[in-house]
Amino acid sequence: MIHDTIAAIATPPGMGGIGIIRISGDQALPVISGLFGNTLKGPMDCLNLESHRVVHGYIFHPREHIVLDEVLLVPMLAPRSYTRENVVEIHAHAGPMVMRAILESIIFLGVRLAEPGEFTKRAFLNNRIDLTQAEAISDIISARSTASMKMAAVQATGKLKENITHAREILISLLTLIEAAIDFPDEGDELIQEKQVLEHIDRVIAICRQGINTYEEAHFLRDGIKLAICGSPNVGKSSLMNCLLESERSIVTAIPGTTRDLIEEGINIDGVPFVISDTAGMHETKDPVEQIGIQKAKESITRADMILFMKPAGETISAQEIDAVVPSHEKVIIVFNKMDLMPEGFTPTIPADIQKIPHALISARRGRGIQNLKKQILSLSAADKTDPTGVVPNLRHKMALEKTKNALSCARQNLIHHREEETLAIDIRMAAEALGEITGDTADIDILDKIFSQFCIGK
Amino acid sequence: MIHDTIAAIATPPGMGGIGIIRISGDQALPVISGLFGNTLKGPMDCLNLESHRVVHGYIFHPREHIVLDEVLLVPMLAPRSYTRENVVEIHAHAGPMVMRAILESIIFLGVRLAEPGEFTKRAFLNNRIDLTQAEAISDIISARSTASMKMAAVQATGKLKENITHAREILISLLTLIEAAIDFPDEGDELIQEKQVLEHIDRVIAICRQGINTYEEAHFLRDGIKLAICGSPNVGKSSLMNCLLESERSIVTAIPGTTRDLIEEGINIDGVPFVISDTAGMHETKDPVEQIGIQKAKESITRADMILFMKPAGETISAQEIDAVVPSHEKVIIVFNKMDLMPEGFTPTIPADIQKIPHALISARRGRGIQNLKKQILSLSAADKTDPTGVVPNLRHKMALEKTKNALSCARQNLIHHREEETLAIDIRMAAEALGEITGDTADIDILDKIFSQFCIGK
Repeated sequence: MIHDTIAAIATPPGMGGIGIIRISGDQALPVISGLFGNTLKGPMDCLNLESHRVVHGYIFHPREHIVLDEVLLVPMLAPRSYTRENVVEIHAHAGPMVMRAILESIIFLGVRLAEPGEFTKRAFLNNRIDLTQAEAISDIISARSTASMKMAAVQATGKLKENITHAREILISLLTLIEAAIDFPDEGDELIQEKQVLEHIDRVIAICRQGINTYEEAHFLRDGIKLAICGSPNVGKSSLMNCLLESERSIVTAIPGTTRDLIEEGINIDGVPFVISDTAGMHETKDPVEQIGIQKAKESITRADMILFMKPAGETISAQEIDAVVPSHEKVIIVFNKMDLMPEGFTPTIPADIQKIPHALISARRGRGIQNLKKQILSLSAADKTDPTGVVPNLRHKMALEKTKNALSCARQNLIHHREEETLAIDIRMAAEALGEITGDTADIDILDKIFSQFCIGK
Repeated sequence: MIHDTIAAIATPPGMGGIGIIRISGDQALPVISGLFGNTLKGPMDCLNLESHRVVHGYIFHPREHIVLDEVLLVPMLAPRSYTRENVVEIHAHAGPMVMRAILESIIFLGVRLAEPGEFTKRAFLNNRIDLTQAEAISDIISARSTASMKMAAVQATGKLKENITHAREILISLLTLIEAAIDFPDEGDELIQEKQVLEHIDRVIAICRQGINTYEEAHFLRDGIKLAICGSPNVGKSSLMNCLLESERSIVTAIPGTTRDLIEEGINIDGVPFVISDTAGMHETKDPVEQIGIQKAKESITRADMILFMKPAGETISAQEIDAVVPSHEKVIIVFNKMDLMPEGFTPTIPADIQKIPHALISARRGRGIQNLKKQILSLSAADKTDPTGVVPNLRHKMALEKTKNALSCARQNLIHHREEETLAIDIRMAAEALGEITGDTADIDILDKIFSQFCIGK
């Protein structure tokens, strides 16, 4: 496949010590010859640069012949590069003006500005990585928690790809066999031994089932555990939300670049991502506007993975109250707030029928008891027991695994009932294709476009 | 000089394709041995890495032994590095979580987090660059206009350093001569030949004078040309300001990272930086609050390098009005606004005594005539005639040049009046020291701290 030459700023936007401009394609070396010199005298011939050898020098403006910046040049020649094409990286100073000036110089020399994810798309099209690895790279960049970062790192090494490719190979071998049986009906019975075929189908079904289960158990490590705070008006829901966000924000601001919009609704507790929602106070009302708010609160509670049920520490609590919100009594923590207004050593009274529900004592206003509450949240989520270093499919993978599993269940039935081999072949082909969608072997252009358009420019 | 080993994220904060973590110091290679492996099997010995040779591999968590990211490793061994120490760069994916995880792993292995500008400070202390080059690097990163970027790029190549070092060497040779004459008074007359000494002093004075002049002529290319918009209330000053900012913003948002706060009050016209101020409408008032506003407007006009005097297109304008604001009639453009309310082909009447003042016809509301006005602003600023690729001192340099020039003027007088050689020596030593402050040869720790603290972390 022949591609044109593309370029983009590969480092995050903004000011910093180092900024990288990446060029990929046949013209990377000729273009750089018009810009780079390793003395102050002007551009030099870069056609014979050694791969993976860093060269120090200067970038010159292609028309004005003035120095734009002192840079390092990193040539990575095909196929030993990210895209498997000739790649040249220019490491300049990360000032927005100078980065723009260098990029414009490259564009001036006939290179096209890369689209979002286009470098990674080329890495995929040139078989350097599969689709699960491409997705993992995007996940690493946008990870909001340690857990999701670790999951992405494992996936990037190709472990999910290996599992899926293995399963798909089993199906493709089967398919070859079945097609042979169709072509040579006389030898059909010798070729297809029912027991053996069933074994193979069941092995792949088991792989699918395991992937789906892992998704169910661990996808929240990627997507965040939905945590709803509820309780009557003025119980301190917003204060608690601020406490949880605030203690987190002080950690997060230590990471350059974790800007406010990243943690807009999310926090990390010990590296596990939570998405907190503050709900309208629950109470009887005839005000239609308030009713809408309460309706929304109820929906958010229905969707939540976990609920913090807030009560002022001095008030009594009943099983009915909890029932109204969380009939199952599962994944709920009763949070007694306003402990600062209670006498020293105060303990709230909890009726016997809800004593099994965990509870926490806090003062949101004074920020007391928050660390302890966080520990309880983490423990109830069981996230601390989930290993993020395993292979966890994402929603797209899970859906393809389900498609595979369903097709194979049909195949199983058809086999047991000795239906036509053609029917069996259709089922297994469908299953193999569904698996191929995960790795990208059979994914159509729409899926590819959707995945790569979610990347940032320069990746 | 022995330094501890430091590390920091060197790329801008945020999400992107590539992020770099830089480590510098004796422990760079041992530390990286605890983290980097070029297979998925675990860390490898990195003590014998070849300099400037890019290695592909994985970063492992030092305690959990899991893969954190697929990376490129760039070792640059002393003295062939930015700091002249052993430097290792880790090129990872620029996700905030993964960058933090890798940095924390490095810190865990005993490396200290670098202070702002600390890498560049080491480059300076280890004589890789002088102070003018360090300042230029900071200027390149924070440049808000093409012109200031180009100036900084020239300075980074060491041209200013060369000029200053040359001048300082002349003074130091002179000083050696004078001190010899003091030590061996009998040979004094032979050693110091007045005419020759005068020639040397005058040569350095000329260098200083030229530097100061360049500063006066071109410093606005670095600092921005102050442009004040004035006129009576409701003439459309804010609309014009928005027009100027808006047309610029659409250009600037094409550069990732040129965030709003960078251009808060500044715009670029053809790469020349302007700082625009919108002033309160000028009119007679007894309201004390309005009077304060008008007073501030007058001050801003006094400080301005250029003034846009706005008038509604239909109204007459008189020399008196201009006199009240810009008595000199210099560096002012009369801007007739609201042309959209005038009949087709309308031309405002301008009295003979102010016909020499340039004028522009615009409709700020409709955004008409703005490009033409920009051209006039640029032309009046004469910025398009100033070459930003020359050596332009900054304010700190200019002050040191003035100190040098003054000390040499004293020296000149003392020489002509045949005062004691000791007095002459003091003057020339003072002059040489002032020059040394520019390059950093004699700068004290306070100056250094001030300069390097303005750098971003990771540079």
